[in-house]
Amino acid sequence: MDRHLLQLYADFIVKVGVNVNPGQYFLINCPVECAEFGRACAKAGFEAGAKDVIVRFHDEKLARIRYENAAEETLAATMPYELRSWLDYAEAPGGACRLYIDADDPEAYAGLDGAKINRANTARAKALKPWTEYTMNDRLQWCVAAVPGRAWASRVFPELPTEQAVEKLWQLIFDACRVTGGDPVGEWKKHIAMLTQKKDQLNRWDLESVHFSSANGTDVTIGLADGAVWEGANSRSERGIDFIANLPTEEVFTAPHRTKVNGVVKGTRPYAYNGQLIKGFSVTFKDGKVVAHSAEENDALLAELLATDEGACHIGEVALVPKESPIRATGVLFYSTLFDENAACHIAFGAGYPTTVKGGQDLSREQLLTMGVNDSAIHEDVMIGAEDTTVTGLRKNGDTVKIFENGSWAF
Amino acid sequence: MDRHLLQLYADFIVKVGVNVNPGQYFLINCPVECAEFGRACAKAGFEAGAKDVIVRFHDEKLARIRYENAAEETLAATMPYELRSWLDYAEAPGGACRLYIDADDPEAYAGLDGAKINRANTARAKALKPWTEYTMNDRLQWCVAAVPGRAWASRVFPELPTEQAVEKLWQLIFDACRVTGGDPVGEWKKHIAMLTQKKDQLNRWDLESVHFSSANGTDVTIGLADGAVWEGANSRSERGIDFIANLPTEEVFTAPHRTKVNGVVKGTRPYAYNGQLIKGFSVTFKDGKVVAHSAEENDALLAELLATDEGACHIGEVALVPKESPIRATGVLFYSTLFDENAACHIAFGAGYPTTVKGGQDLSREQLLTMGVNDSAIHEDVMIGAEDTTVTGLRKNGDTVKIFENGSWAF
Repeated sequence: MDRHLLQLYADFIVKVGVNVNPGQYFLINCPVECAEFGRACAKAGFEAGAKDVIVRFHDEKLARIRYENAAEETLAATMPYELRSWLDYAEAPGGACRLYIDADDPEAYAGLDGAKINRANTARAKALKPWTEYTMNDRLQWCVAAVPGRAWASRVFPELPTEQAVEKLWQLIFDACRVTGGDPVGEWKKHIAMLTQKKDQLNRWDLESVHFSSANGTDVTIGLADGAVWEGANSRSERGIDFIANLPTEEVFTAPHRTKVNGVVKGTRPYAYNGQLIKGFSVTFKDGKVVAHSAEENDALLAELLATDEGACHIGEVALVPKESPIRATGVLFYSTLFDENAACHIAFGAGYPTTVKGGQDLSREQLLTMGVNDSAIHEDVMIGAEDTTVTGLRKNGDTVKIFENGSWAF
Repeated sequence: MDRHLLQLYADFIVKVGVNVNPGQYFLINCPVECAEFGRACAKAGFEAGAKDVIVRFHDEKLARIRYENAAEETLAATMPYELRSWLDYAEAPGGACRLYIDADDPEAYAGLDGAKINRANTARAKALKPWTEYTMNDRLQWCVAAVPGRAWASRVFPELPTEQAVEKLWQLIFDACRVTGGDPVGEWKKHIAMLTQKKDQLNRWDLESVHFSSANGTDVTIGLADGAVWEGANSRSERGIDFIANLPTEEVFTAPHRTKVNGVVKGTRPYAYNGQLIKGFSVTFKDGKVVAHSAEENDALLAELLATDEGACHIGEVALVPKESPIRATGVLFYSTLFDENAACHIAFGAGYPTTVKGGQDLSREQLLTMGVNDSAIHEDVMIGAEDTTVTGLRKNGDTVKIFENGSWAF
């Protein structure tokens, strides 16, 4: 790949995406096969004044060996030090910030017992919740950004030799992340301004609910949580530091009310969950709860996902993404939530973000629940936006407003 | 490299070297660039019945970035969770065992401030001592084994292209570890029997001291600690599980008395310390303490090493390795302590092994000190064996015995 763009990309992720501030601990999760990129991010972190950079390497092939060989109770367990291995930094005087480098193979765990993996990961997620709340609540700056793993690239471009697939995926990532033109900082300023304008208008409308429909059969009314706030692109940490939680990001999103969703949604893109793909799903909601579901591929895994815990069959996020999204424009199916969720409108099964209701960061999970913000050990985005999606908003004053027409912003 | 030998090697390391037992946590430290070998060891660990395998990846290039950029006080610090990240496993009901996969570049940190790195690492070593005592005391099974890192291989074979250098180093490692013949288990059984025979004879002699001399100027008398016991190859953990702490290993070793070393020793091989090479050193001892030292290269680093703490200028180990060692027979300088220390007699600056005095495992560091076993945050082996080394033993009954003549076992 283009070394200059690679450096620009790493710098942008670290200095604008995470926005590492002087004196902070910079925590990086990095796939083993992307070590070189992890080093570039570490360097950029020190340039930005990080007190220290802690890179934790992970490896899906090794994780697969563990899933295949270790007992479920072992996989589900958490050693006491594990939670502390994050909180020791998050609670330090200068605080911490976090980057997750995503190169996941969407089928890393194909053929394994998905239910077992789901149960184990859910148990671990619960034990580590005091840490994940730091990101879910935007208590600290965090960012998820992608690097083309070899298995992932080969899945996206199965017809190409691996090296070429990786090269091509690099190019697409640079495109989708507005790096190719050589001025990501400038381009993102414009992009953030556009998303901010959309979310400000949505907030001014003070919506009661949004209604999605498309020719594929989606027909659902999603009531919003009390005090729902539309968010987009830019986030701000507890310490008042701006960051971009997802690179790329094309969405404007808010909190649905967990008991006020009714109708049918059809999945429009395959969805990778725990290293396996769910394709062609259909879900029916009644009073916020999934009462029927099916999938053309991996329906059992979808059932597992929805049965994870009490909140997993309710939704915690609704997000608007127009069909002009540069990610959709690539015409490529990425098999990666980070990209595919930014190619189409989506909803998320599981926990909502406290930041998507007014003052939510200062509320307990119990208080958030009474406002309608869902809770769960999972947060899984699934794509429901189609070429022809129409979204209509119902304002609290009784007016209706056109939000999407034919898959694009209508205002 | 030969895939079949690679698998034999990984299996041998895990099932004989570490001797992973059913129900144990198997902790692996693995360089990022050797991830594939780490996976092979993880698989072998599960085959041996490990409850779980925890692989921690490290990367010297990243470590170099940290050494270059982080403040000394940050590098020297330890977060509370770090010690627990080991002890949580070591203290678990089934216990733990540990493999360190060594692919170190001997000059990974060339040109950096060696004194700063030494101080930082020493401070960390002190904080992590409750964990390292598990290996120093053989409380659990542990093993250090090597895999050819690219930078390391290129240093050993500077005239070869990297891939060829790696290939050649693999072959040497297989040779040195008695894997090439296809029957490491059988060959090691014979090898361990031979080393056991040597150490048993040395123990029967009940030695007061050993005297080393060679034409290069080495002329030193090393008094042994009270109750000194010669050890070799095979070790046994607190739980009674046999293991081989170093692969390869050619040495028979014991505890010198920290105040009873007098004379001069000359280094016979370069020594890599904290990623930098010390060459051509000379050290003079008086009553166990280094009173003069010099080195043709990196004398300042040697001075740093010796000034690490009070015990760093005393020795904690003396080891006998004949010139017939297969590692010496390769004629190659490995720039790796794991190999070079097994090519020549050596001594170690710093801490002694409690297991090298009678009942030492059950004694406190204070009790060990009174017996003459040295203590320090470091343990650094340096090679002093020459082609013509003579070693003479003085028995407690006043007899002298020939131990080495012309660099070889004399009995």
